[in-house]
Amino acid sequence: MTVKQELLYEGKAKKIYQTDDEHILYVEYKDSATAFNGEKKAEIEGKGRLNNEISSLIFQMLHEKGINNHFVKRLSETEQLIQKVDIVPLEVVVRNVVAGSMSKRLGIPEGTKLDTPLIEFYYKDDALGDPLITEDHIRILHAATPEQVEEMKQITRQVNEELKQIFSDCHVNLIDFKLEFGIDHENRILLADEISPDTCRLWDKDTNEKLDKDVFRRNLGGLTNAYEEIFKRLGGHKHV
Amino acid sequence: MTVKQELLYEGKAKKIYQTDDEHILYVEYKDSATAFNGEKKAEIEGKGRLNNEISSLIFQMLHEKGINNHFVKRLSETEQLIQKVDIVPLEVVVRNVVAGSMSKRLGIPEGTKLDTPLIEFYYKDDALGDPLITEDHIRILHAATPEQVEEMKQITRQVNEELKQIFSDCHVNLIDFKLEFGIDHENRILLADEISPDTCRLWDKDTNEKLDKDVFRRNLGGLTNAYEEIFKRLGGHKHV
Repeated sequence: MTVKQELLYEGKAKKIYQTDDEHILYVEYKDSATAFNGEKKAEIEGKGRLNNEISSLIFQMLHEKGINNHFVKRLSETEQLIQKVDIVPLEVVVRNVVAGSMSKRLGIPEGTKLDTPLIEFYYKDDALGDPLITEDHIRILHAATPEQVEEMKQITRQVNEELKQIFSDCHVNLIDFKLEFGIDHENRILLADEISPDTCRLWDKDTNEKLDKDVFRRNLGGLTNAYEEIFKRLGGHKHV
Repeated sequence: MTVKQELLYEGKAKKIYQTDDEHILYVEYKDSATAFNGEKKAEIEGKGRLNNEISSLIFQMLHEKGINNHFVKRLSETEQLIQKVDIVPLEVVVRNVVAGSMSKRLGIPEGTKLDTPLIEFYYKDDALGDPLITEDHIRILHAATPEQVEEMKQITRQVNEELKQIFSDCHVNLIDFKLEFGIDHENRILLADEISPDTCRLWDKDTNEKLDKDVFRRNLGGLTNAYEEIFKRLGGHKHV
């Protein structure tokens, strides 16, 4: 039994604790919702539970598909154990359909399908507003080595293929999503952070109804209803 | 003798006219100075003359170094002839030292030397604020083909080597600059637009005094004094 110890980090959506196993961390999901680099904030009861449940389910499915990731074990509705990694300061975004910031940034209508999945890197730095960067910038910033970038891109493409299938089976189109990676104590790249409606754009296949954080960003209704719907479609309640 | 005909385009810094030769355009440099995507504006007497003279000189030097470009002939203090091209909607930026938007965007101190020259692409679209884009975005926007991107990068590296030498001989460090390219009537990529203190960052080698448009952007004193200094160091007055 892994024992929770001191708080290491509190972010916008999670608290992370050390445990008595030096390679294992304890994560507690919070009910906070934030958007636009923290400018919009709210407390939404049930959000922490839903993200913990959904992320646990998806990371477990990815493990079963052979994609290594930091997820160790769901502990409770809002808690899980993960492997300890040093987070690479990059957000790796995959887009199958244009939406959100890409639509605004490049003037391409939201909903435009891309011929092949697009991978973008953003530099994780709240003070700088997480800017889009190129692979040359990654090198200059020493955010990752070129080999690590290639490996992250390869894993990201695999994750995209698996997630597209997982969500397609739930009658949901995977529009885009964000991944984070870490380096473990054996210097291996490991998929980390969370995969949930906070980090994915998920549109119902028939109606294009948004079942993700855009419900909060754009004031489209109840966030927990959308997240519950995703959890239900993933077959989540059977596992709890 | 090429005859000036109707106005084709008026931009922030130039007017471009058709001529009686369908492949040749007539350019008139204006005295307008603009910065920050047009938010800051002024009329500065002499600026048009200096940019026309300096750009004519530099494009002529690049011709002599074997780098094809659109420049045909200086006509007067403010006028020149150029080859007609379809401008590729990209600003190609080369950086030898971190400054300006890159410093702000990535939180790297201005003046940091880069190990190798960095090439960045910005999408030429005033309404979007000329955003930084990746080579994947260039493909998605159909702004240029991958082969054209490779050719522009290769020419850009050559231009950087030549310009670094030209300015070094004038006791000036070439910090960064912006190039534009066009496609001529035989579908060839051709270096186009202008190369002047409006499009380069130029710092005196000893004092780091700015001899470029940052003088205007940052209210550092007389713009024409700085541009005259560059013109003089390039040996410009001998040619006029």
